[in-house]
Amino acid sequence: MKVVAGKALRSGPIPRKRKGMVYQKQILLETRGHRHLHDLTADVARIVHDSGVRTGTAHVFNVGSTGALGTIEYEPGLLEDLPDLLDKLIPPGRDYGHEQAWHDGNGHSHLQATLLGPSLTVPVADRKPVLGTWQQIFHLECDIKPRRRTIVVTVSGE
Amino acid sequence: MKVVAGKALRSGPIPRKRKGMVYQKQILLETRGHRHLHDLTADVARIVHDSGVRTGTAHVFNVGSTGALGTIEYEPGLLEDLPDLLDKLIPPGRDYGHEQAWHDGNGHSHLQATLLGPSLTVPVADRKPVLGTWQQIFHLECDIKPRRRTIVVTVSGE
Amino acid sequence: MKVVAGKALRSGPIPRKRKGMVYQKQILLETRGHRHLHDLTADVARIVHDSGVRTGTAHVFNVGSTGALGTIEYEPGLLEDLPDLLDKLIPPGRDYGHEQAWHDGNGHSHLQATLLGPSLTVPVADRKPVLGTWQQIFHLECDIKPRRRTIVVTVSGE
Repeated sequence: MKVVAGKALRSGPIPRKRKGMVYQKQILLETRGHRHLHDLTADVARIVHDSGVRTGTAHVFNVGSTGALGTIEYEPGLLEDLPDLLDKLIPPGRDYGHEQAWHDGNGHSHLQATLLGPSLTVPVADRKPVLGTWQQIFHLECDIKPRRRTIVVTVSGE
Repeated sequence: MKVVAGKALRSGPIPRKRKGMVYQKQILLETRGHRHLHDLTADVARIVHDSGVRTGTAHVFNVGSTGALGTIEYEPGLLEDLPDLLDKLIPPGRDYGHEQAWHDGNGHSHLQATLLGPSLTVPVADRKPVLGTWQQIFHLECDIKPRRRTIVVTVSGE
Repeated sequence: MKVVAGKALRSGPIPRKRKGMVYQKQILLETRGHRHLHDLTADVARIVHDSGVRTGTAHVFNVGSTGALGTIEYEPGLLEDLPDLLDKLIPPGRDYGHEQAWHDGNGHSHLQATLLGPSLTVPVADRKPVLGTWQQIFHLECDIKPRRRTIVVTVSGE
């Protein structure tokens, strides 16, 4: 896994200390394909810190229709349980309407990603994301092949 | 489908160019009832453009407890696959507790909408929503009858 | 149920009337354990009113990996239907990988909470959350034991 974080989406210098600020960065992630979970918490925390925002929100978004975001206790058991659950509810297979048109074998990937959702917002307080001790921010690759993912983090507040 | 977009929720003139701005509009949607998906992407993009916000977020929200929002590759196969999936996981029927009290036949509609969720936030960069090429913003009608839906879009940033 | 709302996350006086403001409070909730739904709508509405924000968004977040948030018609039937649905899709049991490592019997709790999600954003207009008449903001306890929950509400706007 290579994580290339911090490429700015906006050009020009970013003011660090003023009211009502917005700070936006992207995280680049190379995934291993279907069922690959990755812990984004440290990257998001660093972007929040760099933003200078003390109180507000951090919005995290997966660009693309076959990846998802959420929070989970990031431990080895659940890293299998979550993909297992999604594969049980929305099994890989050829019976999806998406497959009839595109023949790319990832109908379940689209549905898994849509059900979990591409978007997560967490509070920011004291210049840090507010999360439980055993609550981490994850990215889940739902597509069947390794993908290069762009995750956009937007920190808003003051 | 009639889409009546752009009715302002706030009165008075809306300043277009300043720091830390908020811009809020609603999209009015007449749906065909259960399983009806509609692509909101162009409406949201136009509202983002009109807001003057260059960097920030756009929040999209379905008012009401039997409609949902999300992102999907908006192509004919998945437009059947997503309602099929929801009807498999949460089948229409009379066995819901909601039905015992209300007898309106839409217990599954409430649960489908709650599971998918009424709320989506997407990043804004360069005065546009940030989305993948094959990632669109959808509204899904979960209720059993055609409904007139109000979707509130709030663009925040600078 | 004891609800202790309004403990400030930020120190110092909170300015009430200016542009681009952010206002953050927490709601403390003592839950009864698995399947316990609680209506947060009045607490969120009060925090929105106190914020002085007229137009913007209110973000509501469950701190911890075994609680969830969303919207629902808060009536007795659905208060059973939603936990029933989650227990059908993600049954309590000992077969989860999480259980092998931790033996705390709440593998399903983590997965139910991750699937529903910890985060909800609603629009704010005229100093009130924008919700349907039969659409309320709920907290769902997914853990197997009573828990003391912290819910962070961040109101942003102007």
